[in-house]
Amino acid sequence: MKIVLLGSGNVATHLAKALKAKGENVAQVYSPNLINAKSLADQIEAEAIDDLSQVNQTADLYIISVKDDAIESIAISLKKVKGLVVHTSGTTDVKVLSAHVKQAGVFYPLQTFSKAKEVSFNNIPLCIEATDENQLDILKQLASELSNQVYEMDGKKRKVLHLAAVFACNFPNHLYALANQILDQNGLDFNIIRPLIAETADKVMANLPENVQTGPAMRADESTMNKHLGMLENLPELQNIYQTLSNSIKLTLK
Amino acid sequence: MKIVLLGSGNVATHLAKALKAKGENVAQVYSPNLINAKSLADQIEAEAIDDLSQVNQTADLYIISVKDDAIESIAISLKKVKGLVVHTSGTTDVKVLSAHVKQAGVFYPLQTFSKAKEVSFNNIPLCIEATDENQLDILKQLASELSNQVYEMDGKKRKVLHLAAVFACNFPNHLYALANQILDQNGLDFNIIRPLIAETADKVMANLPENVQTGPAMRADESTMNKHLGMLENLPELQNIYQTLSNSIKLTLK
Repeated sequence: MKIVLLGSGNVATHLAKALKAKGENVAQVYSPNLINAKSLADQIEAEAIDDLSQVNQTADLYIISVKDDAIESIAISLKKVKGLVVHTSGTTDVKVLSAHVKQAGVFYPLQTFSKAKEVSFNNIPLCIEATDENQLDILKQLASELSNQVYEMDGKKRKVLHLAAVFACNFPNHLYALANQILDQNGLDFNIIRPLIAETADKVMANLPENVQTGPAMRADESTMNKHLGMLENLPELQNIYQTLSNSIKLTLK
Repeated sequence: MKIVLLGSGNVATHLAKALKAKGENVAQVYSPNLINAKSLADQIEAEAIDDLSQVNQTADLYIISVKDDAIESIAISLKKVKGLVVHTSGTTDVKVLSAHVKQAGVFYPLQTFSKAKEVSFNNIPLCIEATDENQLDILKQLASELSNQVYEMDGKKRKVLHLAAVFACNFPNHLYALANQILDQNGLDFNIIRPLIAETADKVMANLPENVQTGPAMRADESTMNKHLGMLENLPELQNIYQTLSNSIKLTLK
């Protein structure tokens, strides 16, 4: 299977390395910035290109892994290829591709990727979709090589999943950052709170979060909540977040 | 060292088992509800009592592990004992004890405890404080038996830590629950999002959260945020949380 990767960001990088590790042939890496294309291409022994006219026309699979609003213009440049064209976006409809290319699909890895950290694809849920049954089978086979969690999923469910991921990943990480801000202002190191963060996540691996909620709001402990709000007096933004989330927890008590 | 445990909730239970596992002698477990006292006492071969007048007067250490507003009345009942009296609360001043007992201290484990899940005390930060230097040494020794993360900390810092813990633990867990609500309403299982939760927490074990933030708010991707807000139209509470946290993330971009 000959693959062309269009993009060189976090998702593209982790995906390219995972494909390479499974022996797949990623022939080209495209980025409008040649340095970025080269930096990734060199890691997986691929050709780096920075012009869409250089894209190999005979690949089996084209993976567009770029910012959502850049997907369509790349799809337009792939009008003539016969291979399957997929994007890796959680929020973009497959129609953005199928309006332009012959064979369209989606290959959405539900994970948070940073260049700073290696991840194993084994446990990453891969959500796939294709407009053609045969192409779906090809995609399913490739996905199963990378991960043992492959889900066929239409765009509506994928978008729901992407929204849920913001609540389960992006927002918790920001709350970790706010916790660090509070600690830092008082000369305490983030390290002291790391075991708590690890345990909080670990707890919901075998339990549903609503069954293991703890803390002052869950105990309707108004006295502690008022003390906390008082401590945040000079941080009105954090005070607002504290109030908003505590109220939301209290709603679950009814 | 003879220990009396006053309380039988989550913290008391996990602490009692950890002490027992280290060969410490927890002689009594008190709870106003004898069934609760017995249930824990039986697990650690201790005596169960439900009357404060039955408390052994010659113990070395009395651990009060009850709701914050019940700590003082128990301390009053321990006026005559010579041993060290500590509580396990993050928010309660040591003075609540020292106003009544001869030797007072704090033994605060920074962790989230649920009966549903065993935890290892090894990595739990134990924050200790005592009004007397000798008693602090005793407490330090006991804490070091249980955990390799022992912190001497005054009440002011401990309260900051407790506040940070709400942001790092209670609020993220509630966001997991909201994610599950979104998934559930659309026929998706919580299991699909578990790897993302695990990775999000794992990522900050070796990085600071502000350095690994991802998501639409971090990319200032207004188009995706507007789509998400639209999807939450019938859930105004979640819409409000989405907006509040996204705004807070956007503030970090400046």
